[in-house]
Amino acid sequence: MRVLDTVGGPEDLKGLTDHQLTELAAEIRDVLVETVSRTGGHLGPNLGMVEITLAMHRVFDSPRDRLLYDTGHQTYVHKLLTGRAPKFDTLRQQGGLSGYPSRQESDHDIVENSHASTSLSYADGLAKAYRLRKEDRHVVALIGDGGLTGGMAWEALNNIAAAKDLKLVIIVNDNGRSYSPTVGGLATHLTSLRTNPRYEKILDLVKKNLGRTPYVGPPMYEVLHGVKKGLKDMLAPQGMFEDLGLKYVGPVDGHDRQAMEDALAKAKAFGGPVIVHAVTQKGFGYAAAEQDEEDNFHQVRPKNKPRGWTDVFADEIVEIGHRRPDVVAITAAMLHPTGLAPFAQEFPDRIFDVGIAEQHAVTSAAGLAMGGMHPVVGLYATFLNRAFDQLLMDVALHKCGVTFVLDRAGVTGDDGASHNGMWDMSLLQIVPGLRLAAPRDGTRLRELLNEAIDVDDAPTVLRYAKGEVFADIDAIDRVGTTDILTRNGTDVLLIGIGSMAATAIDVGTRLQDQGFGVTVVDPRWVKPVDPKLVELAAKYKFVVTIEDNGRAGGCGSAIAQALRDAGVTTPVRDFGIPQQFLDHAKRAAVLTEIGLTGQGLARDVIEMIAKHQGDAITSEPDTASGRPGGA
Amino acid sequence: MRVLDTVGGPEDLKGLTDHQLTELAAEIRDVLVETVSRTGGHLGPNLGMVEITLAMHRVFDSPRDRLLYDTGHQTYVHKLLTGRAPKFDTLRQQGGLSGYPSRQESDHDIVENSHASTSLSYADGLAKAYRLRKEDRHVVALIGDGGLTGGMAWEALNNIAAAKDLKLVIIVNDNGRSYSPTVGGLATHLTSLRTNPRYEKILDLVKKNLGRTPYVGPPMYEVLHGVKKGLKDMLAPQGMFEDLGLKYVGPVDGHDRQAMEDALAKAKAFGGPVIVHAVTQKGFGYAAAEQDEEDNFHQVRPKNKPRGWTDVFADEIVEIGHRRPDVVAITAAMLHPTGLAPFAQEFPDRIFDVGIAEQHAVTSAAGLAMGGMHPVVGLYATFLNRAFDQLLMDVALHKCGVTFVLDRAGVTGDDGASHNGMWDMSLLQIVPGLRLAAPRDGTRLRELLNEAIDVDDAPTVLRYAKGEVFADIDAIDRVGTTDILTRNGTDVLLIGIGSMAATAIDVGTRLQDQGFGVTVVDPRWVKPVDPKLVELAAKYKFVVTIEDNGRAGGCGSAIAQALRDAGVTTPVRDFGIPQQFLDHAKRAAVLTEIGLTGQGLARDVIEMIAKHQGDAITSEPDTASGRPGGA
Repeated sequence: MRVLDTVGGPEDLKGLTDHQLTELAAEIRDVLVETVSRTGGHLGPNLGMVEITLAMHRVFDSPRDRLLYDTGHQTYVHKLLTGRAPKFDTLRQQGGLSGYPSRQESDHDIVENSHASTSLSYADGLAKAYRLRKEDRHVVALIGDGGLTGGMAWEALNNIAAAKDLKLVIIVNDNGRSYSPTVGGLATHLTSLRTNPRYEKILDLVKKNLGRTPYVGPPMYEVLHGVKKGLKDMLAPQGMFEDLGLKYVGPVDGHDRQAMEDALAKAKAFGGPVIVHAVTQKGFGYAAAEQDEEDNFHQVRPKNKPRGWTDVFADEIVEIGHRRPDVVAITAAMLHPTGLAPFAQEFPDRIFDVGIAEQHAVTSAAGLAMGGMHPVVGLYATFLNRAFDQLLMDVALHKCGVTFVLDRAGVTGDDGASHNGMWDMSLLQIVPGLRLAAPRDGTRLRELLNEAIDVDDAPTVLRYAKGEVFADIDAIDRVGTTDILTRNGTDVLLIGIGSMAATAIDVGTRLQDQGFGVTVVDPRWVKPVDPKLVELAAKYKFVVTIEDNGRAGGCGSAIAQALRDAGVTTPVRDFGIPQQFLDHAKRAAVLTEIGLTGQGLARDVIEMIAKHQGDAITSEPDTASGRPGGA
Repeated sequence: MRVLDTVGGPEDLKGLTDHQLTELAAEIRDVLVETVSRTGGHLGPNLGMVEITLAMHRVFDSPRDRLLYDTGHQTYVHKLLTGRAPKFDTLRQQGGLSGYPSRQESDHDIVENSHASTSLSYADGLAKAYRLRKEDRHVVALIGDGGLTGGMAWEALNNIAAAKDLKLVIIVNDNGRSYSPTVGGLATHLTSLRTNPRYEKILDLVKKNLGRTPYVGPPMYEVLHGVKKGLKDMLAPQGMFEDLGLKYVGPVDGHDRQAMEDALAKAKAFGGPVIVHAVTQKGFGYAAAEQDEEDNFHQVRPKNKPRGWTDVFADEIVEIGHRRPDVVAITAAMLHPTGLAPFAQEFPDRIFDVGIAEQHAVTSAAGLAMGGMHPVVGLYATFLNRAFDQLLMDVALHKCGVTFVLDRAGVTGDDGASHNGMWDMSLLQIVPGLRLAAPRDGTRLRELLNEAIDVDDAPTVLRYAKGEVFADIDAIDRVGTTDILTRNGTDVLLIGIGSMAATAIDVGTRLQDQGFGVTVVDPRWVKPVDPKLVELAAKYKFVVTIEDNGRAGGCGSAIAQALRDAGVTTPVRDFGIPQQFLDHAKRAAVLTEIGLTGQGLARDVIEMIAKHQGDAITSEPDTASGRPGGA
């Protein structure tokens, strides 16, 4: 019987012997590697968290004490220790365990989202609430060195430092690489902390530790020593935190459970805010992940990836880079996932990875544009939300020619509510002067990217889905900016936005099969709404829009408004994602659930038509194509 | 003849003698006090910037070198030195000089917006662009100690520190109080820098300086020494910046022009990023402003203020605070402007001023809510944009009962594009589960605030305008959440949102005068759209919505969508602010310009009706009230 099988909750950890705990750590690593290689998910970060998580649960008393994890993808070990080991094989499967904390799953989970750098602010609020309510509870926030590059972590530190009596412990899990190596002055500073004389002692402990874990990679001792190069003097290594007035404990070897327990116990006893600086290695205990220079093990995907939207962008931006020496690229700790790595390799002077710092990414892009460059900012769609004010005030108000490329737009599925890119097309409607394009396939992605980069006096945005790029859908005609995809009558104009163009064609076929005359179009540029599209819509009996974005204030809403403004009274039905947080599941399953499939939409459109006019539709399709059955 | 009259541009400063420059500084202070006391505007910050601005323009070569000011309201001196002295008496008047930098006014102005903490990111981008283009130009960013509490300033510092060869000078204008005293660990740290032994020498200089300026307040020496209390040891005072790898020069007396010039010249010669730490006194040289504990001189208003929306909120939240011990309040460096000062005085344990740190304000509110409190976050409407992701993911996804109170919503006017609160009602439509209310008058503000604070499982938002609170408009009936204000027929349903309810009544009267039957309502809660409002709308021939928010994705758009979803085909016309950046002018002038007046709207509605139906409207009003003339 495994030790893990005896752990029903954190209370069961407290009676274990040192030997059993070491066994448990090894068992947990086995489960992580075995499960994640099958289900997909975040492997490297969790392998690095085993001993820290054990120490947290042994020193603190969750759920009475509150354990918060910055970026929820590093909570697999926490899940295994809080009664969820038996269900761990359902990780990230529909109806199974979430890949992130979930309050529905467990009282030990507090914060469900995965956007980085937020944990310290939550912790500050929670600790202040307990202080006011005179509840004797500790709040523990674990944050990576990457999370600390996000500005709001600094806002929180600045406030926490001023609150001397909060029972708040901050653990910095410093592995030197959040996604790829962590960037900036802070990273250099943390690196310098590691060269503290006390750290030499830690390296000894690490070496001893290596014997206890199934480690088969290159000596970690050397890995850790590699960061020592080129450092300045270290008179006051913890200066940055202590300058803020925060008590500092460390650095501690984050893979030495006992050392972590000692440090946390000391921090717990202090009674005020404390930073515990733990040094870890991402992927610890799994050779392939430890040696992973390209950070492939940060997130593991179960199968080989087919050619994706990201790949198409990656190729095209390199092409553009050759032609346009003024094009530079910016990423916020997402060089590989956004497809900017080949650009970085080709043009090392023209890439800026700013860390997990979307606000800075966007406003520094404005500065670059003002200085005569054309920046391309590559982000996940959901993370643009973090820099809305900067996009609005710093880029758009100043009419800067900056191109934003939003990957993982629409329903992303597996990673749950906080990863779905379902907000961007509503948010962007608000921004004056901004132009927004949603390519329907790889050819359109390339075409629209080039059109976007030609705009030098306003922000432009491209957004596309996660995963495999769709098969090309050629247009049969173009009206204004709009591509006509099929044209078979004037009953219904189906407007398919971006990746929903393919769905619109499916809907169109189904409606034609029911005897309706349908035209399917892709506006390509969805903001501003092209007046030619409004003119076109006026010729139809019904207008239907389909987008994989929240319905509130989305593209359909904008098109309906444009029709109202033009006095066009054609009834509009705007389909999109219901404005709610979606549970995790595969993209296709989510789309079916919310009715964004050819079948579901065709049924809804027919119902709408029936509601609007009892009479049978009488118009004939334009073409002589087969038309079985009447309406 | 004044020295100022000889300064047509910065080049004219270079030949002036020391004596002339001292004269010039005094003249500038006279102009500032005289003009701002008449036009309104920011006095304290600009009085503190006189010598720094002179030094910047003497050492650097604007506009070739780029001078950026964080929060544009501290650029009055810059305007006086860059050819705009002759027009300075038109400050903040329609058609006159903007209260912020303006690229239309001058090549010396670069960044027009006023949202804090952005200048370092712009500067980083600009300097990187010049480096790539091999242009030998310096970029200088001036930021206050308050601006440094904003997270994106830290994101920028972290990146700038890693770019050793950028020609970038950062001037920290440290007056110890951004709006009210600057808060947090950073402020304490900056205070400690001031106790550096080298600073003693600066204090000597300051004392000498005092003789040269028309200073009549309490000895500044004592003021500056007052901050020395309770400090820790100062082994490495500049540690925080140098830990990041940034070269640090200072502290320098920011009122000693020569010392500032020397420091800037040194920084310019260095060739890499440098921080120059200038210590100043807000309001320097004007006794009333220097002694201004409540920071009334930060922004001066020309007349005595009548009772405003803010005052109503200030009173009511204190009432609520007495009744509800779980209510706490959060502000981001806006204790007085948001009306939270009386609450802070009454409940000193239950107020949290987090500095210019909206992201932290919102997520720490989530933490407080999770810990059992009900936080009320007071913000200017435009600044909510900075914490959209935190509102969406940290508050709404977690169903936290947090109440946001947005002051200065709608058209604020004088302060220009970046201050208008015209984005919030669109942005908030996107957030699942959030409830949004727009009170039409003081009574409704109190009523809705109480309703909002009773919601403990979702975020609630109240938004109201700047300035004088409107006269109460009593309802004659209530349907669902909607107040019926007047009811005189079923031709047109006029939906007036928040402060536009009064305008809607005006429109209604004008339409009735033209023979139309009109009902005017105020939905009070504008999100979610009440199904009862949809039912009501179905009974009318036309629905008209009026809001002082951007039209894209606003309340009108949401109501139109709700009608579509319910299959209601009543034509809708949604009036609001056109989705563009508005020039500065008085609120009333702006509203007239964009047609949001009783007269303008009545004309537009009549045109719409005429367009939709050539026939005369035939329905009779419900009441027997006078009805001159037919349609």
